[in-house]
Amino acid sequence: MNELLNFDSLNPDLGKNYCSCLSDRPMGDFKHLVLVKFKDGVVVEKLMEGMQNLVAEMDTVKSFEWGQNVLSEDMVTRGFTHMFLLTFRSPNDLATYANHPSHLEYAEKFTAAIDKVLLFDFPPILVKPSA
Amino acid sequence: MNELLNFDSLNPDLGKNYCSCLSDRPMGDFKHLVLVKFKDGVVVEKLMEGMQNLVAEMDTVKSFEWGQNVLSEDMVTRGFTHMFLLTFRSPNDLATYANHPSHLEYAEKFTAAIDKVLLFDFPPILVKPSA
Repeated sequence: MNELLNFDSLNPDLGKNYCSCLSDRPMGDFKHLVLVKFKDGVVVEKLMEGMQNLVAEMDTVKSFEWGQNVLSEDMVTRGFTHMFLLTFRSPNDLATYANHPSHLEYAEKFTAAIDKVLLFDFPPILVKPSA
Repeated sequence: MNELLNFDSLNPDLGKNYCSCLSDRPMGDFKHLVLVKFKDGVVVEKLMEGMQNLVAEMDTVKSFEWGQNVLSEDMVTRGFTHMFLLTFRSPNDLATYANHPSHLEYAEKFTAAIDKVLLFDFPPILVKPSA
């Protein structure tokens, strides 16, 4: 099974119960963080063109940013070289995005290009907003 | 050596040279992403009070958010349960923060509380801003 597409473990109740510190906060954004190591020879810019088109098309994607790790020590980076951070208005919007045919088509190409992946889905707690 | 405090590998020229896709972008924010797994028994809320005080005190920290992973499969999460994302106006501001006595003092407590860490420093490329 494609681990990028596996949302079985996403429990919509977790925002209320998983961490007591979250229980009093109002429902807000939900973020999907993806760290990857690409296979040798992958042209990242080309892959990102597809991602750019995908997030432009998907109204459920509230915002999207990505970046390349400038740290080089494998001990600290665990080998992950690129990160992708998508913001949604709710876990449901993430699920809608994940199951959309356009995402499924893109995810197939993306998955074929990566050596390894780390997923981190979370309701963000904004302690210090940008001034 | 404390790997949380090791910024030796942070090359300030990387924003210009590391990835050709970055070469044309103006200097902008710089982000410091930390994923951790805490030791059993750690009271995360208590640790976060210290972090809240720290980022409030540090003018070099432009913004700060954190979150707890709602995904539970170790295969996908690699065991990382919490993330911390700090935004700075430049790599220099991150270095100033990292070497500040208040951060060094806090980092000692934080490091004692974690089982493992992953660091990811990057100039963010904002493809889709929040509407």
